[in-house]
Amino acid sequence: MIMDENTIIYGELITVGNELLSGQTVNNNAAHIGHHLRLANFHLRWVTVVGDREDDIAEALLKAIKRADFVLISGGLGPTTDDRTNLAVAQALNRPLRRHPKSWQVISNHLEKHNLSMTPAIAKMADLPEGAERIDLVRPRAGYYMGDTEKPLFFLPGVPSEMADMLADFVLPTLKKRFPQKSVIRSHSLRLIGLRESEIAQRLEILEKEHPTVAFGYFPRFPENLLTLTVQDSTLTGADSTLAQVVQAVRDLLGLYIYGEGDNTLEMVVGNLLIKRGYSLALAESCTGGLIGHLLTNVPGSSAYFDRSLVTYSEAAKVSHLFVSPDLISRYGAVSMEVAEAMVRGVQKESKTDMALSITGIAGPTGGTKKKPVGTVFLALLCEKGLHSERFQFGGDRQKIKLAAAYAALDRLRRAMIDESFFHGE
Amino acid sequence: MIMDENTIIYGELITVGNELLSGQTVNNNAAHIGHHLRLANFHLRWVTVVGDREDDIAEALLKAIKRADFVLISGGLGPTTDDRTNLAVAQALNRPLRRHPKSWQVISNHLEKHNLSMTPAIAKMADLPEGAERIDLVRPRAGYYMGDTEKPLFFLPGVPSEMADMLADFVLPTLKKRFPQKSVIRSHSLRLIGLRESEIAQRLEILEKEHPTVAFGYFPRFPENLLTLTVQDSTLTGADSTLAQVVQAVRDLLGLYIYGEGDNTLEMVVGNLLIKRGYSLALAESCTGGLIGHLLTNVPGSSAYFDRSLVTYSEAAKVSHLFVSPDLISRYGAVSMEVAEAMVRGVQKESKTDMALSITGIAGPTGGTKKKPVGTVFLALLCEKGLHSERFQFGGDRQKIKLAAAYAALDRLRRAMIDESFFHGE
Repeated sequence: MIMDENTIIYGELITVGNELLSGQTVNNNAAHIGHHLRLANFHLRWVTVVGDREDDIAEALLKAIKRADFVLISGGLGPTTDDRTNLAVAQALNRPLRRHPKSWQVISNHLEKHNLSMTPAIAKMADLPEGAERIDLVRPRAGYYMGDTEKPLFFLPGVPSEMADMLADFVLPTLKKRFPQKSVIRSHSLRLIGLRESEIAQRLEILEKEHPTVAFGYFPRFPENLLTLTVQDSTLTGADSTLAQVVQAVRDLLGLYIYGEGDNTLEMVVGNLLIKRGYSLALAESCTGGLIGHLLTNVPGSSAYFDRSLVTYSEAAKVSHLFVSPDLISRYGAVSMEVAEAMVRGVQKESKTDMALSITGIAGPTGGTKKKPVGTVFLALLCEKGLHSERFQFGGDRQKIKLAAAYAALDRLRRAMIDESFFHGE
Repeated sequence: MIMDENTIIYGELITVGNELLSGQTVNNNAAHIGHHLRLANFHLRWVTVVGDREDDIAEALLKAIKRADFVLISGGLGPTTDDRTNLAVAQALNRPLRRHPKSWQVISNHLEKHNLSMTPAIAKMADLPEGAERIDLVRPRAGYYMGDTEKPLFFLPGVPSEMADMLADFVLPTLKKRFPQKSVIRSHSLRLIGLRESEIAQRLEILEKEHPTVAFGYFPRFPENLLTLTVQDSTLTGADSTLAQVVQAVRDLLGLYIYGEGDNTLEMVVGNLLIKRGYSLALAESCTGGLIGHLLTNVPGSSAYFDRSLVTYSEAAKVSHLFVSPDLISRYGAVSMEVAEAMVRGVQKESKTDMALSITGIAGPTGGTKKKPVGTVFLALLCEKGLHSERFQFGGDRQKIKLAAAYAALDRLRRAMIDESFFHGE
């Protein structure tokens, strides 16, 4: 993406804590901060994670100040001996720690309110670097701002809720005041199923070259793909019109492979289509073991259309609940187009739903044959428009095959409802 | 844990990707890598996150090489235009990209197998910096090792499953060879269900103080908890004997809340217990929507004991497949102990399995009442030892309630098979 570098305000984040390095804690704070900065048109360009060591914190801080327009530091502001951020700041910036009267007051009030007494460890939290301006006047753990340094510096607690509050209430408004923005950023996410990342990139290659000011972000989320388009412009209408134009061009190139936008999941999209048509749905699952039912019922309100899923793993279950004849199974095998079709007819007969889908396959690692290797999956879909049946060959391990099969099933339900050629294209 | 600083080998990690900076993706890879390095007695001292920019990747790499004993880089190795790690390496280390014959072969084989054709984007993945040694000989996205540089460098894909495999199969063994350690580190992981993290920490508080040389690591993985005990010693027998002693003490304190060790999942443990007893299992699910069946069938070989799961979401399905009388439902409600017990009797009658379990509840966000708020779940378990039924009240959103209910069900199956007092303790 080529942008006018002058218009972008870059931030850096330093997150402090041994628990982040040892993997005990996942760095959700970094994702939260990056996301909210981005929404406010600030770009995080560099995140550094260091442990509870003064030297490392100081080094990270000095490097960040050199590179970025502003710096956020999160963590290491508490009362314990491994909270060393303030000491590192004092050392790096040559700003000795001083008893901060407002902080002392906040801490004293807090202790009084909770009937606790002052300890040296707690008192330490009232010692802040010279020039520090306290962000929050309630919590004892001080978040603070240094606006008189070479670059503006924000110090936030590592506790997620405290960090999030101070980011929203103080950091973002202060940044907006300090860096009034000339340009506007707008972005749009599209969700895709049925194409690999490389296939998507190939189909969009020319479009991407034609629009050098639009950033094309590809995010594989097996078995789906997320595509995020981001535009920066000097005006809101300019950004919106470029974005709308590119989104339309992408839609023209990728068609029905795009199943949704933003936070919409495939199971939500299928659910909404069912609701719109007033359809009910029943499943007969085998190799997916209940995964399709699980995904569909993750959506609040799914009981309006989801009737049942008969997970018939054993042959006996297929026979007794789905009326699949033992003869058919012995002739074609439990994993076959014939049995998939019998399964879907069986579950529809019993449930009388508007749509029914069955799936049977070999999830592995054993059970494959030369003609039907591991990853072979048969699916059948029945509704008033007709019967659709299909054979798939998926790769990967057992869990990947189950996931790929479940998402293929959801995708076929979607296509059966919106693709005019779905039942004719066979 | 106190260690001799001289014996510590420090690593640095650079994770590459705009999606990590914009908060679109949480940096789970960093936590995974930090944790597994730690278990192998290597310490991550610094993690850097940079976007898909050559200059930033190159700068981060050169700084890391200066500070650390070894460097891992994850991400930016794919086929799209925003995959720029190889270009950055070439630039930073002055190691021009060359067509890597083995990589070319791996990619060609992969394309042939999947009936795809070579594109310039895919071909790009075969161009590696001079001196690169490919880690994996199956996957097209090359992870590679550079052992002839100033410090050993490992390049891993950002795709979590590929990264994790290459870390375990190549990076850790190579590091152990390259940095033979004087002191021995041994660790043991225990998996727990049914206690909160704070309850576990409280029960182990005294033990932890009695063993200051043992690191107690608590990792909540909702709805489970992982406890990792790590010992460092100058000899293998010393480490092993301390570890065995502490593990035994933890087992004494936590008893049946410990369901497994290491990588054993709860569904594997349940599966193994069923196999040992030659038991078969049938489920009748409602609020979990198929999740229990999905979890159980994630285990290879589960068809040996898993017979069926009847996901009866609608009342009609409960009536027709489980023989629950409409009267009972209208009298007590579909979410009730009475209906759970009728469901389990119904599925057992039809399947004739050795064990049967049913579950019905209110996953929310709507449907709760004062007497049965959202999160109310009833479970019934039937086997030759008797009938066990239980009411739960779970918190959180829809997905959390489904997860908590499914794991409670698996835990009850486990306890029914190993806890002598399970059917008497009511």
